[in-house]
Amino acid sequence: MSSYKNVVLKISSSLKNGAILTDVGSVKKKAIALIEKNIPKNISWISSHPIAGTEESGPESGFAELFKNRWCILTPSKKSKQKDLKLLGKFWKKLGSRVDVMDAKQHDFILSITSHMPHLIAYNIVNTTLKIKKKKDHNIVKYSAGGLRDFTRIAASNPIMWRDIFIQNPENTLKMIDKFIENLKDLRGAIKRKNEKKLEKIFMRTKKIRKEIIEAGQDIGKPDFGRK
Amino acid sequence: MSSYKNVVLKISSSLKNGAILTDVGSVKKKAIALIEKNIPKNISWISSHPIAGTEESGPESGFAELFKNRWCILTPSKKSKQKDLKLLGKFWKKLGSRVDVMDAKQHDFILSITSHMPHLIAYNIVNTTLKIKKKKDHNIVKYSAGGLRDFTRIAASNPIMWRDIFIQNPENTLKMIDKFIENLKDLRGAIKRKNEKKLEKIFMRTKKIRKEIIEAGQDIGKPDFGRK
Repeated sequence: MSSYKNVVLKISSSLKNGAILTDVGSVKKKAIALIEKNIPKNISWISSHPIAGTEESGPESGFAELFKNRWCILTPSKKSKQKDLKLLGKFWKKLGSRVDVMDAKQHDFILSITSHMPHLIAYNIVNTTLKIKKKKDHNIVKYSAGGLRDFTRIAASNPIMWRDIFIQNPENTLKMIDKFIENLKDLRGAIKRKNEKKLEKIFMRTKKIRKEIIEAGQDIGKPDFGRK
Repeated sequence: MSSYKNVVLKISSSLKNGAILTDVGSVKKKAIALIEKNIPKNISWISSHPIAGTEESGPESGFAELFKNRWCILTPSKKSKQKDLKLLGKFWKKLGSRVDVMDAKQHDFILSITSHMPHLIAYNIVNTTLKIKKKKDHNIVKYSAGGLRDFTRIAASNPIMWRDIFIQNPENTLKMIDKFIENLKDLRGAIKRKNEKKLEKIFMRTKKIRKEIIEAGQDIGKPDFGRK
């Protein structure tokens, strides 16, 4: 966090009076609190989070449609000017994004559900698989098309970035882990007791959300993501 | 299971002497034990499992490349003839599959890792999300491109089929759930203690398996599955 702060402050010191400065970090509460206190008064500091990207990192992984129809969340700080928030929104819209504004607390909570937790779970299932593979020497990779391969995409994301996200958003992450384990134990019990009705009810419910996501333009509707 | 048995026995009674009969179920141990005892002596009963498919079901969801380069596991029963195992293997190869032979116990163990567990975890994370959504009324769908949407594809699979798979393969499924929870608690502890080195080490390791899967031809190498 201190290197992040140093970079932001170094950039801000070279900016003209009234400039807008933004970042694209995945966790807002700690980052904003740190910068808010230290940034010069003449800089309008507004944090951005474009919910877009792939498992690859770096400028060379960008492409023209990266932000198209994806939501970008803007989180103003005490050092943001209202007119600049509108201007920054316009900037993201020009790149194809849709724009929402919310505070850091709400951002970090929602993202822990839609992004941080899925990544942690993907890392955990791949890690669990690797441990079994090492012990039993099974050729897991050959049979990964049965479901596992989807998780390996997310678990191939930048390890350093994700290490930092979990450490910077621990309250939400730990709570989500506890809820996830509680529900998994509930499923475990239903399987053990052969409770067909309960399993069926849960699996029916989860099917609907995919349709909603596709209708909201946040994924493609082709089976298997259109992989060929 | 009894309706499955009835269907198989009804079909087998209409077959000529020496015919080969196969199924494409996802769990082998219980199914084979059930059929093996009851099938007529003149039928060569061999179970198949093509590790291929999408989140959609039914004949209309098939396509020409469905089995191309995907592994198909053959599990012979006591009622299989060796020459017929070769013949059935040829049949799957004609459809584009690669063919492996293994016993029911090994099949059910490996598939619990590469397919059953990923599906259960996907159902569980989407179910956990829906519970929070209901309680807090957050618009989760909008921000699903941050990772969650990958899981919703798998959690959109046939609920009845998956209910039956978990109930027919409980020993492996329950063991995998326990291992998964144990590892997730370990990650939870590392996040709580801000153990950067440990998180980094685990996340580095999981990245490699994606490369292996792509090299084995079991997924495409395009970022984001080539979604557009």
